[in-house]
Amino acid sequence: MNTDTHTLPASYLQMHSTVTQDGQLRVGLGQMPIPTPKDNEVLIRIEAAPINPSDQAVMFGWASMQEAKTTGEGANTVLTAPVSPEGMKAMKARIGQALPLGNEGAGTVVAAGSSEYAQSLMGKTVAALSGQMYAQYVVVDAHACLPLQDGHTAKDGASSFVNPLTALSMVETMRMEGHTALVHTAAASNLGQMLNRICIQDGVDLVNIVRKQEQVDILKDLGAKYIVNSSDDNFIENLTDAIHATGATIAFDATGGGTLASSILTAMEAAAARTPGAYSVYGSIKHKQVYLYGGLDTSPTILSRSYGMAWGVGGWLLPNFLAKAGEEVNTRLRTRVAKELKTTFASRYTQELTLTEALQTSHVSDYISKATGEKFLLTPHK
Amino acid sequence: MNTDTHTLPASYLQMHSTVTQDGQLRVGLGQMPIPTPKDNEVLIRIEAAPINPSDQAVMFGWASMQEAKTTGEGANTVLTAPVSPEGMKAMKARIGQALPLGNEGAGTVVAAGSSEYAQSLMGKTVAALSGQMYAQYVVVDAHACLPLQDGHTAKDGASSFVNPLTALSMVETMRMEGHTALVHTAAASNLGQMLNRICIQDGVDLVNIVRKQEQVDILKDLGAKYIVNSSDDNFIENLTDAIHATGATIAFDATGGGTLASSILTAMEAAAARTPGAYSVYGSIKHKQVYLYGGLDTSPTILSRSYGMAWGVGGWLLPNFLAKAGEEVNTRLRTRVAKELKTTFASRYTQELTLTEALQTSHVSDYISKATGEKFLLTPHK
Repeated sequence: MNTDTHTLPASYLQMHSTVTQDGQLRVGLGQMPIPTPKDNEVLIRIEAAPINPSDQAVMFGWASMQEAKTTGEGANTVLTAPVSPEGMKAMKARIGQALPLGNEGAGTVVAAGSSEYAQSLMGKTVAALSGQMYAQYVVVDAHACLPLQDGHTAKDGASSFVNPLTALSMVETMRMEGHTALVHTAAASNLGQMLNRICIQDGVDLVNIVRKQEQVDILKDLGAKYIVNSSDDNFIENLTDAIHATGATIAFDATGGGTLASSILTAMEAAAARTPGAYSVYGSIKHKQVYLYGGLDTSPTILSRSYGMAWGVGGWLLPNFLAKAGEEVNTRLRTRVAKELKTTFASRYTQELTLTEALQTSHVSDYISKATGEKFLLTPHK
Repeated sequence: MNTDTHTLPASYLQMHSTVTQDGQLRVGLGQMPIPTPKDNEVLIRIEAAPINPSDQAVMFGWASMQEAKTTGEGANTVLTAPVSPEGMKAMKARIGQALPLGNEGAGTVVAAGSSEYAQSLMGKTVAALSGQMYAQYVVVDAHACLPLQDGHTAKDGASSFVNPLTALSMVETMRMEGHTALVHTAAASNLGQMLNRICIQDGVDLVNIVRKQEQVDILKDLGAKYIVNSSDDNFIENLTDAIHATGATIAFDATGGGTLASSILTAMEAAAARTPGAYSVYGSIKHKQVYLYGGLDTSPTILSRSYGMAWGVGGWLLPNFLAKAGEEVNTRLRTRVAKELKTTFASRYTQELTLTEALQTSHVSDYISKATGEKFLLTPHK
């Protein structure tokens, strides 16, 4: 092992989330011994890691976060929250396990294994996907690192994976499953903005669903062509018009709960009914799909089923898609992200938090609300 | 054209369902001129046609059938029922069209076109799938007929397509989508019994969900191994045990509405959680699918989404599956049905109705209730 001029401490802090047998969620910091990278591994000093909704799903799971409390100070800070019996059932497989957190982040390679490639990364700023990024250090496979271009900081590269690959994979999924245009909800989000930039570049029609006029304005400024506000009285009519104009038969919904997925299918069916030959006595013929990739609304999904028989609703998760898509697609998407990191895939952060700040209920209630335009960055070394 | 000794009338009765612009459903009989078969067509005198749930979906659609009325007599009998504004929206594409009814049936070929094959069917008893079988006569392509074996009556062959092909296609879908065992609801139905016979023959594990002890008994008598009663207090536990024992990750649900689909996914997730390595922080890894192929419960489908991200719920319709499956699969399945018509695919009817009887509210309320073990047969020539 070769270490940088940077002097390594004997141990480091790593954030964990645990569901205890007695119905409590505990999120806290563990003092871990600094690991030694193996031949093909590198040790990254993590400088920036975003708090994504997918990270929060693991951090907080099905706990009742409105009853969360923070106790202790510094490295002993612990966030606790009660978990309902239904929540315990849903999280049965993780009871008693201290799960590490944080899917992505970036920092400096401060130690490397003996292999030539690992050694070549020494001192470089890299981004990585690991599931253990809410920590001061992490060991990852050298080939899993995305070396950033010169002049790009850890903060620039912190969100290189989840949102960029999710947005790109939505368009890939659309193509693979035989659709030609798509619908996206919570469309003014950081992810939604990336998706608009991709679709404009690639000439793919995108129907954006938002809830507020200010979100309409954000997307208009980006050049979005189809924007529908779900708070408008004639929402379903406007949505049907946009779906008819684009021919969208697949949607990605970040909200998950309530009737939005069903409304999208209803509008797709109404759009198909306007097209002669697209309709049978069992409803429209073309398969209509809504993927729920997030859970901003944790209430049950309600499906009216008033859209014939050719429809599907299901969960969509980036790692599952990438595993199915294969190596060629993975490489192509990552290469595009690295090239367009400061343009198409640029993220803006509204607040930076240290590991202990991120466990304070005052901050948790901010980032858990997932307000449009707000994005939080963890800085484990500040 | 060559006609049998049977003297053809100038016209015949055909049942139609129409949704009128002013919010009414009307099901009645039309007097149609007897058609002349083209070269490759035959004219069938329809002697038996079952009333399947899929036929009722077209007959009654989204009308409020508890408010249905019957008026007129004989060939002028009409069943009417009001349609709610939501129902009108869902049926928008069929407003004003008199839709013919009846997906399948059987009878005698009484006239044939000039082609050799059409001529060879003269006088034979055949089954057919056409969408216009609730009538005294129908013209179909000769190659679309299934000639019955000697000694098989029209009544024996009336249900040769919908239930047999649906049951077989469920097992095909299971295999095509990479599953190895399946779950079925309303499992003591005519279709469910066929599915049990197929699965026992083919060595496929099947979890049967029923609502009553008498349905448990029906399936036990058939030799079913896994039967779960949804009225039992420990239903979810029993279902989880059966799913764990069989490894079922796909289900076919006839009810459609309510929480049953969600409960099946919950049990699949709980079963996966018992298996080390089958679980990630985002839930179980293997895709879990529930297909809704019927709508015995017309209320909305409620999904709790407490089963990770690798799941799907969607409509499933036989013609869509057969179109996707291709010629080889279609031929293989039909050949098996013809061979096993009086064993695996035998149907029993509890009542026979004429075309006008089928429009009486007293009979409609019987067959619309889709009670287990009850199956109705139309006899258009009695």
